[in-house]
This record gives sequence, structure tokens and C-alpha cells, in this order.
Amino acid sequence: MKHLLIASTSTLHGMGYLEYLLPVLKNHFKTASTILFIPYARPGGISHDAYTAKVADAFAKIDKDVVGLHTFENPVAAIEKAEAIFTGGGNTFLLVKQLYGQHVLSPLKKVLQNGTPYLGCSAGSNITGLTMETTNDMPIVYPPSFQTLGMVPFNINPHYLDPVEGSTHMGETRETRINEFHCFNSQPVLGLREGSWLEVYGQKITLKGSLPARLFCQNQPAVELQPETDLSDLS
Amino acid sequence: MKHLLIASTSTLHGMGYLEYLLPVLKNHFKTASTILFIPYARPGGISHDAYTAKVADAFAKIDKDVVGLHTFENPVAAIEKAEAIFTGGGNTFLLVKQLYGQHVLSPLKKVLQNGTPYLGCSAGSNITGLTMETTNDMPIVYPPSFQTLGMVPFNINPHYLDPVEGSTHMGETRETRINEFHCFNSQPVLGLREGSWLEVYGQKITLKGSLPARLFCQNQPAVELQPETDLSDLS
Repeated sequence: MKHLLIASTSTLHGMGYLEYLLPVLKNHFKTASTILFIPYARPGGISHDAYTAKVADAFAKIDKDVVGLHTFENPVAAIEKAEAIFTGGGNTFLLVKQLYGQHVLSPLKKVLQNGTPYLGCSAGSNITGLTMETTNDMPIVYPPSFQTLGMVPFNINPHYLDPVEGSTHMGETRETRINEFHCFNSQPVLGLREGSWLEVYGQKITLKGSLPARLFCQNQPAVELQPETDLSDLS
Repeated sequence: MKHLLIASTSTLHGMGYLEYLLPVLKNHFKTASTILFIPYARPGGISHDAYTAKVADAFAKIDKDVVGLHTFENPVAAIEKAEAIFTGGGNTFLLVKQLYGQHVLSPLKKVLQNGTPYLGCSAGSNITGLTMETTNDMPIVYPPSFQTLGMVPFNINPHYLDPVEGSTHMGETRETRINEFHCFNSQPVLGLREGSWLEVYGQKITLKGSLPARLFCQNQPAVELQPETDLSDLS
């Protein structure tokens, strides 16, 4: 039975790392004393060790130990034995390249299907969708595939951003980009604003947090979904 | 002898398509009566025909005919015979996938090295760099490689955007993204603001337009370059 939280962002403006999620995580990770952390996305290029230390600081507040996947000689075995797993944000291309390079994507998919509790933030959420093709990140490295975990039967757009009123910038808005995605791909895309997350418990998918999310389905106008919306039938 | 214009954007806010560039293009394309247009990037998913018609409207103002590359049975021959070439903006992943799929990337590189006049805007500029890895676009399709034309010995970031003062959004700024690129890649990145372009005539590369551009070199602080800066020695 799946047991995932899929969060738009790790951090809300003006708050500490993971701070807004800690009360929820205490319950979500209640069966685990140690969290296996996947640091591959390396935000800002920081080291795996430095990133893991930051995560350990946050989880110490709810009495969880944290160990970095990069410290294991056999990362597949580490995934298979993990009590709980957290994949942090950063660059999705780097994360996915490394997941394939370390041959952990399939084992990760398997343990998540079998119920290992999981938290993803930003890039770590993006990879729970069918593909990483709705990431906002810069393609700084070339992954062998854009296929990801498919823990939900649609794609995630984390850090969803509404168009800026009165902007004179001619680059595409987020909505335009997602519409372009739908010219070539049929799966729905859920734009999760910062502060929103999905709870995936078994077959049930629920929108959490205080904000609406924006749902894009191919050949249909985008719609706003209110918190507590049941997304179990979306595909 | 190379003869390229590499523009950040096709369109400035409040102006018509290519309008700000037309006086420059009149001279740049003075030897050509017909421009071969590469419409593969398909902004907003519009058709190749519709995109080509829009470009033809703009070039009619300086008495140039436009023909779309998609209308040729043999696109490689069309590239080889072209009097001048323009690649329009849209989605860089889609553009690069199509360039590889149609086997025109190498022929395009060859004719540009031999002097066929070229204009790139946005995605069409991004591909003149060493790789497409500093595009801002969403990875809506999977290209077989991120390697591009290498008409300049660095990477281009079109639509360069300064951080928004007082933003509460936690997604990465453009500068952060480019710094992440430099954790894994050594070539310089030139951030071209909307309204700037590069002129590449032979070995000489010059920054044009009224705005400064922002240059990022690995392990060095970013610097602002003033218009008319000579970039011929940058690599």
C-alpha cells in the first residue's frame, strides 16, 4: 500500500527547511526511526554530505535520524532495506541522471509500491509522476531517459507559478509551457503551488495544504482544485 | 566566414514580431531574397504552416520571401541550398529533437561555418551555443542529445531574467540555475536580456542592442558586459 507525500516545495518563504511540513511528517513517518535521504539533486551544487546534514538538522526536530544514500556502497540494498525515504529538491535532470546511473530507479519504484513511506519535495516530487517532462529545471546534464516513478498516473509541476500581472517579459508563462507539453503528451499535469502537497495512501490521492492546485488536462481548460480534493480517479 | 545574428527574443513587449530587428536584418540578409525558415520549435504548439506564415508577414516588410523547411521533401538539400536561414523560438527540446530526427543539425552547422547568413531568436539562438543545456524551456520531449551547433564557443541563455526584487517564490533564480550548470560544465554562459543580440561576423563576436548582457564563467563572479563589447576571445 503506497504511503507518499508529494510536496511542491521543501521550504516556504520566511520559514525554516521543511518547517511547515514537520507536523505532518511526524505522523507520516511514525513507523520509522531513520530516514534514507536521496541527496542527488544537489540544490545550488552543494555536496551530498552538506545536503544530508541540512536534512538531518530538520528531521532531528521530530526525533528522526537521517542517513544519505551516497554513503552506502550498495545503494540498491540501502533502498530495499530503508524504513522510510526522502528525496530532496534541487535539479531534476541531475537527480534523474544519478538515479539511473546508480540503478536505483526501479528498486525505488518497487519499494514505494510495497509501502515504504516516502516524502518528495520539488525535484523529489517531480520524479513521482509519469515523467520528469514538466520540471521547471535547467537541463544542466543529460539523463538517459525522462521516464520516472509513476507513483501517480499523471505528471507533477512543482513550484507552480501563476502569470505575473503586467509583466513585460516575453518568456513563456508556466501555463503556456504546460500547454506546450500537452501538444505532445496526453497525461494530466498537476501544478502544485508552494505550500500544497499530495497525500497518496494506498489508492487514495488527496490534495493537502491551504492552497488550490491547478489541473491541466489535454484539450481542456485548466481548472482550480480546492484542498482536500480527491484525485484518485485522475489519469 | 560566419554571418550570424543571435537574438535573445523575437519580440519586444508592445512591438510586432521581429519589429525591433528589422532594420538590422535588412542589412544582415542583404544578399538573400528568400529566407529558409526552420519552424520546428513551434511556440505554443502552433503548426509549422501557421508559424511560417507569421514569419513571412514580418519579412515581407523588408521585401524578403520566406519558405518553411517543413515543406521540403529533402530538408538537408534545402539547408545546403538556402540563401539565408532563420530559426524561430518556441521549445528548444522540440527544436533539437526535430533537428536530429530530420538529420539537419550537421548540414546546418556546415553551411553556417561556410557563411550562409543566419538569424536565431530564443530557441533558435540557444542552439548556436555548444549545448542546449542553458535553455529555460520545459523538457516536453526527449531529444537524442543536448549537443548543438557550437557557432560560438560558449552557451547562450536567452530571455535572461534578473531576480525579482522581494519575490517570495522559492523556485531558483536564473542566476542560481546557471551557477548549478557550472557545477557540471566548464563553458561560459552568456545571459542575453530581451533586446540584446550577438553579431558573429567571421571570427568577431560583438554584443549588440542597448542593454548590458550578463556573463557567467565557471568559478568566477558574474559580470555585466556593455553593448559593443567584443566577445571574440571568450571561450
